[in-house]
Amino acid sequence: MDYSGRQSRLAALLREQGLDSVLVTHVPNIRYLCGFTGSAGVLAISAAGKARKAAFFTDGRYTQQASEEVDGAKVVISKTAAIVGAVEWLKRQSKLKSVGVEAEHMSVATRASLGKYAGSIRLQPTSGLIEGLRAVKEKAEIEQIRSAVELASRVFEAVRTNIRPGAQESAIAAEIEYMSRRLGAEGMSFDTLVAAGKRSALPHGVASQNPLPKRGFVILDFGVILGGYCSDMTRTVYLGQPSRAERKMYESVLEAQLAGIKAVTPGAKCAEVDRATRNVLEKAGLGRYFTHSTGHGVGIEIHEMPGIRKAAKPTKGKKRMAARARKSAGAQFDTLVPGMVITIEPGVYIPGEGGVRIEDMVVVTETGCEVLTPTPKEMIVI
Amino acid sequence: MDYSGRQSRLAALLREQGLDSVLVTHVPNIRYLCGFTGSAGVLAISAAGKARKAAFFTDGRYTQQASEEVDGAKVVISKTAAIVGAVEWLKRQSKLKSVGVEAEHMSVATRASLGKYAGSIRLQPTSGLIEGLRAVKEKAEIEQIRSAVELASRVFEAVRTNIRPGAQESAIAAEIEYMSRRLGAEGMSFDTLVAAGKRSALPHGVASQNPLPKRGFVILDFGVILGGYCSDMTRTVYLGQPSRAERKMYESVLEAQLAGIKAVTPGAKCAEVDRATRNVLEKAGLGRYFTHSTGHGVGIEIHEMPGIRKAAKPTKGKKRMAARARKSAGAQFDTLVPGMVITIEPGVYIPGEGGVRIEDMVVVTETGCEVLTPTPKEMIVI
Repeated sequence: MDYSGRQSRLAALLREQGLDSVLVTHVPNIRYLCGFTGSAGVLAISAAGKARKAAFFTDGRYTQQASEEVDGAKVVISKTAAIVGAVEWLKRQSKLKSVGVEAEHMSVATRASLGKYAGSIRLQPTSGLIEGLRAVKEKAEIEQIRSAVELASRVFEAVRTNIRPGAQESAIAAEIEYMSRRLGAEGMSFDTLVAAGKRSALPHGVASQNPLPKRGFVILDFGVILGGYCSDMTRTVYLGQPSRAERKMYESVLEAQLAGIKAVTPGAKCAEVDRATRNVLEKAGLGRYFTHSTGHGVGIEIHEMPGIRKAAKPTKGKKRMAARARKSAGAQFDTLVPGMVITIEPGVYIPGEGGVRIEDMVVVTETGCEVLTPTPKEMIVI
Repeated sequence: MDYSGRQSRLAALLREQGLDSVLVTHVPNIRYLCGFTGSAGVLAISAAGKARKAAFFTDGRYTQQASEEVDGAKVVISKTAAIVGAVEWLKRQSKLKSVGVEAEHMSVATRASLGKYAGSIRLQPTSGLIEGLRAVKEKAEIEQIRSAVELASRVFEAVRTNIRPGAQESAIAAEIEYMSRRLGAEGMSFDTLVAAGKRSALPHGVASQNPLPKRGFVILDFGVILGGYCSDMTRTVYLGQPSRAERKMYESVLEAQLAGIKAVTPGAKCAEVDRATRNVLEKAGLGRYFTHSTGHGVGIEIHEMPGIRKAAKPTKGKKRMAARARKSAGAQFDTLVPGMVITIEPGVYIPGEGGVRIEDMVVVTETGCEVLTPTPKEMIVI
C-alpha cells in the first residue's frame, strides 16, 4: 500500500487548512497512513517546512509488531501515554505552530489532559480529513476489497444448505462466521444479521435464538474482514411458498437495487442514486417501508464515506462542519468519483409481516461502475 | 437486573458532585442503566428536585427494540440527533442547571456541537461515574458472568483435540468461535488469541495463518459474551516434549497465578495482588519477562475497573482526575470490595523463544474470593 503517497496527500491538505501538523488518533486512520494493525497508538505527522516527518507512538506490547508493520514513520515505544509522547515530539519539530486533532476521534477527557502539554502549539479540531482521502480507493485497495467480497460470496454459497425451517438464526450465523474463518477471514466486519419471518422486518436484526419458521423471508446480512478490508452483502431467501404479494415485494426490491446500480456513475450525486432506488419502491407503493438510506462507502471500516442518501438539509452548524469536511478532504462527498467503493442496499420492511433487502458492493469506475459481488440475486425459494 | 436501583445510586452520586443530571453516551453504561442492548442512543437522567426522571433517545431503527427492552426510562424516538433530543429534554426539566457529560465517551466534535443547544445549562465533564458503579457487581450479574465463564470452559474442553502440530492458529480460533456460538454465545468478547511457538512470546498474539509447530507453547486466550456479559480465560498448552526450563517456566507462572488468587480478599489493595504474582516470578528470575499487569475487572465490557496493577505514580493532573473518579464512583478503585469480578493472569514472555500465560476469573467475596473458571491448570502436554 502507498503509505508515502497517502501521507503526502494528507500533508497537502494540512497546508490548505493552515495546519502544519496532525495528531492521528483514530486506529483505522493510523493503519491507512502507516500500516500499523494493532489497536493502540498515535501517529504524529509534521508537514512544517519542506520536509515531511512522521513518528508513531505506541506501548511495549507492540514493540515487535510496530517494527515489523510501520512504514513511513519512525516507531517510538513511549513510556508515557502515546499521545503525550506524540505531542512532545511535535513540540520539538521546528517552526511548528498549529496541530490538527481529529475532533470525531478524540474524547473531551483526552483533549482536556493535552491542554497542559501543548505549550505554545495550538490544537485545532479537524473533521473527516483522512476519511476523505480514504473514500477514494487505490487499485491495491480495490483488489483487496474484491477478495473480501468474493470470500463472503463463497461463504454464502457454502451455508445455503443450513437455511431450513427449525434451524436457529444463531446457528446459521455461527456457520457463516465459521466458514468465513475457515476460508481465511480475519474476522467479521459487523455482527452477523440473520432475521427470519416477522423478524425480517427489523432492518437491523442481529441473529437471535429463534428457530426459522416454515414459511417467510430470511434476511442474511454479513461481512468479512480480509487483509484489513471489509465486505458487506445481503441476500434474502424465502422458506416455503411465497404469496403473490411476497414475490412482488422481492421483485420490487430487486428492481430498485438494479436501478441504484445503474445510477452509479462518476459525477452522479449520491442523492440521485438514493432517489433511483426510492423511485422504484415508491412506484410499487412500498416507499414508506424503505426506512434507511441506499448505501455507504466500505473499506478499512464497514461504514465509510460517501453516504448514499437523501441530500441533508443541515442546520447552520452542521452545514459549516460539512463544508469544512469537504474542503479538508479535497473531495466532494456528495458526488461519486472513480475509486469509491459503496454498497447498494435498498430494503422493504413491513412491521409484523416481514422484510426484504438485497445488497451488493460496487466500485465506481471511469465510465460507470462494476459490481463486485458475484452472488446471483434471483429469489431463492427453499 | 435492578435498573431502578442503579439509577438511584447514580442520582445520589450526581448530587454528591453538585450535578443535577447526566447525559449518558457510552453504550455499555446505557445498557447498565436501562437495559437497552442496541448500539445507538443517549440516556438523560435528571435528579433535580426530589423526583428522578429518565428518558432514552434513539432513532427509528430501534423503535421496536427500545420499547421492548428499556426499563426505567421513557423512550423517545428522536427526529433530530439523539443527543440533541436529550439536551432539549433536559432543558425542559425544571430547576436544572448543571449536566454531567461522560468526558471519556464524548468526542470533541460532539461537545462542540452541543454548545449551541445547551443554552443556560452547564455541561460538566465527569469521569468514571457509572463505571465505578459497574465495578461492583450485583448477584444477578455475577451469575450471568458465571454462565459465560462456564460456557467458555466448555468451549476450551471441546476444542482441545484441534490443537496439534500443523493446524493453523486461525483454524483453532475458528473452532473456538464456532463452538462458542453453538453453545449459545452472542459473540466473542475480544479477538481470539492463539499464539504458538515463538509467537507465544507476544502478549497480544491474535491468531495468524501460521501452522502450529511440532514443539513449543501455545497460548489460547478468548472470551465469550452471554446475556451481555463477558468472560475471559487463558490456558497455555505444550506441543511435544517440554525441556526442563520450559516446565519450570510453566510451573512458575502457575505458582504466580495461585499466589495472585490467594491475595484476592476484600480490603486488599489491587497493587498488593499485582505484587503477589510479581514476587513469585521475580524469585524465579522471570520478573523482567512479565510485561503487563496482573488483571482487570470484567463485566459488560471486557476491560472494567479495577485494574490489578502497580500503584500508579500519577502526574498532578492525572492524580486530580483519579481522585475525582474515585469520589464520583463512591468506591475505592485501588481496593477490592465484595462483588468485584476480576481476572488474575500473570504471564512470562521470552522474546524469540516463547511464552506462558494462565488466566482465571474470580469474584471477590465477603471472606476472600471464589474462582469462577472451572478449567484445570496443570500443564497440558500434547
